Amino acid sequence: MPNETITAPKGFQAAGLHCGVKQSGKPDLALVYCPTGAKAAAVFTTNAIEAAPVTLCRKQVQNAPIYAAVVNSGNANACTGAKGLMAANVMCNKVAKELDIEASQVLIASTGIIGKQLPITKINIGITDAATVLSESQAAGNNFAKAIMTTDTRAKQAVRTIDIYSKTVTIAATAKGAGMIGPNMATTICVITTDAAISKPLLGKALKNAIGASLNRLTVDGHQSTNDTAMILASGLAENRTIKKQDAGYRRFVRALNDLCSDLARQMALDAEGATRMFKVTVKGAAKKTDATKAARAIADYDLVKCAVHGSDPNWGRIICAVGSSGVKLNPAKLACKIGDVFVFRNGKPTNFDAKAVSKIISQKEHEITVDLNVGKHHDFCYGCDLSREYVHINADYHT
Amino acid sequence: MPNETITAPKGFQAAGLHCGVKQSGKPDLALVYCPTGAKAAAVFTTNAIEAAPVTLCRKQVQNAPIYAAVVNSGNANACTGAKGLMAANVMCNKVAKELDIEASQVLIASTGIIGKQLPITKINIGITDAATVLSESQAAGNNFAKAIMTTDTRAKQAVRTIDIYSKTVTIAATAKGAGMIGPNMATTICVITTDAAISKPLLGKALKNAIGASLNRLTVDGHQSTNDTAMILASGLAENRTIKKQDAGYRRFVRALNDLCSDLARQMALDAEGATRMFKVTVKGAAKKTDATKAARAIADYDLVKCAVHGSDPNWGRIICAVGSSGVKLNPAKLACKIGDVFVFRNGKPTNFDAKAVSKIISQKEHEITVDLNVGKHHDFCYGCDLSREYVHINADYHT
Repeated sequence: MPNETITAPKGFQAAGLHCGVKQSGKPDLALVYCPTGAKAAAVFTTNAIEAAPVTLCRKQVQNAPIYAAVVNSGNANACTGAKGLMAANVMCNKVAKELDIEASQVLIASTGIIGKQLPITKINIGITDAATVLSESQAAGNNFAKAIMTTDTRAKQAVRTIDIYSKTVTIAATAKGAGMIGPNMATTICVITTDAAISKPLLGKALKNAIGASLNRLTVDGHQSTNDTAMILASGLAENRTIKKQDAGYRRFVRALNDLCSDLARQMALDAEGATRMFKVTVKGAAKKTDATKAARAIADYDLVKCAVHGSDPNWGRIICAVGSSGVKLNPAKLACKIGDVFVFRNGKPTNFDAKAVSKIISQKEHEITVDLNVGKHHDFCYGCDLSREYVHINADYHT
Repeated sequence: MPNETITAPKGFQAAGLHCGVKQSGKPDLALVYCPTGAKAAAVFTTNAIEAAPVTLCRKQVQNAPIYAAVVNSGNANACTGAKGLMAANVMCNKVAKELDIEASQVLIASTGIIGKQLPITKINIGITDAATVLSESQAAGNNFAKAIMTTDTRAKQAVRTIDIYSKTVTIAATAKGAGMIGPNMATTICVITTDAAISKPLLGKALKNAIGASLNRLTVDGHQSTNDTAMILASGLAENRTIKKQDAGYRRFVRALNDLCSDLARQMALDAEGATRMFKVTVKGAAKKTDATKAARAIADYDLVKCAVHGSDPNWGRIICAVGSSGVKLNPAKLACKIGDVFVFRNGKPTNFDAKAVSKIISQKEHEITVDLNVGKHHDFCYGCDLSREYVHINADYHT
């Protein structure tokens, strides 16, 4: 089986293990190391309350080169004040000491419960242990992916290989996230590695573009966490001519990165808390792009639509209701809605569709909802998932 | 037992019965009649897709006097095109014929499933039957309240009696609504009767004010229906000097109306689809009023907060997260949050609160969440309810 982990691109070693943050004994500390140094870029939560590691990482990512990234799960180090910020710094210092680099050359992210101080002694021991077992193996990459998980039931990983300027370039990524997922920014934690040679500004631009078209298009509950972080490290070891301008090579890199991140977004939707299926909402015919975005998200976030999807119910009334209350410009007399390829609503009126056939479309693992506002030429999309009793169970019965 | 139905104010006769819209055999047609004629006012959904009865009622309510209002449940007559608008007109015509008034003097509302044509023949027979049994009795008022229900498990009714210019004035109301409740406008169907003598402009102003501070402050799922309608009919039979300006008498009327509508909003929250409890979110210290409103609604609409309330979990992290992502101005270092009277978060940090005691507060039928943004002097509130498996059951397993 080919390596589909973040150690697939040349120049990356990874580790993932249990150090004691999670009481369950599951992996909770992840480390990735690029011995030759990497260009780095990241995007972060826009939540006004941001976790300590976000504050620190926002600063560090401006440095070059970056040699490592450390992630812990089980504790978000959010709402933890000055002590939390100190703990984030201690983590970077520890990684630096173990790898003989500068603390300023380490990226950091945390995910898990909000408002508890990190068990920093345990984490320090974990970092030492992780540094010892760092490896380019597929198993090490898998361990990394598992160690960033929280309520995820499976690791999310993907890899893409492309030719850039006649050299083979690999991009790999892993992401975690199952709940508290809103489409305002990168979704929870996403770590991307690549051996592409690319300038730092273009790497940042490509990442922003890819996250915008993938993880930012996914909503589970419309919630945006205090810890959302997506980072990319580029080792340059593919030895392609360095991507320095927005030419064909850059565009090829962007397409592959977008495709990779969309793959992760879909994996996340299918593993969302309690979700049994996902759907893609496309809104077209909008007067402006922001209207299309707004309407698509309104539908994907609408609890009654999510319940209808859960029940395989072709309840187009709820979709129309969501569109109507989203505040976008529309033409009621020309409004149309398709579920899969079937028009259920057209020219402002329900059609005589085959309810059983449409119910079958909705019962699939993935389906599409398309709404035509019929007032313009703009379009956008959003991924969503169904709302189940299990979501309530996970989020009501689990206590802080 | 005192009459707490819409027949309590002088001059109103009501009826409610089953005519065949609902397959369950439950009451689905309601009629209220004011033989002496009433001043009327109404507020409607702001959903861009509005039902036929909303379009018609919006026009009719401008007329004076209004003699009757007819409401059917089980079918919303929404997304039904020209045929739907014709059916709404047929209903008003039928009421007019039975009561020997003009069709333009009848208000109308529908609630229920979207996108199906009304069974107008059955409804016409129902109107004839209802006109026959119109009565000022409490039983008739109760029948009206039951006939406007959809997924409600109980009727919501309230009455208030006040002195205005030394005369006793009564205001009574009934409302329906359990799901698809968002805070953008009047919530689903609300019918208010009063024997106050009051000018039409001031009646409209008072209604808008009261709905704004009550039903518009309630969110079950943030959804706004195509049919939201709140109407008030004033018979003037209390024989108070007519309220013509915004004096002490007007203010007393407004206070009583606000109190009455808040009572209904709380009854609705407690009977929301699957809800087991409700909560009131107050946001203070906001830089502007709209920030306070936005943050309060963001918290009350946050599925993870609603799940935590369902599980009696003092998970303040989700409240803080909701505030942070609501886009309002706040001071992270001074942010505070109380559950009941207990500070769980203060000066940007969690407190050492007694989790068991706070869990007990949350497990009550009603509790309060207060957030202080600490950046200004404005405040606002919103009512919310918990999210349960039952909500999913009702909305996923029930098929169109």
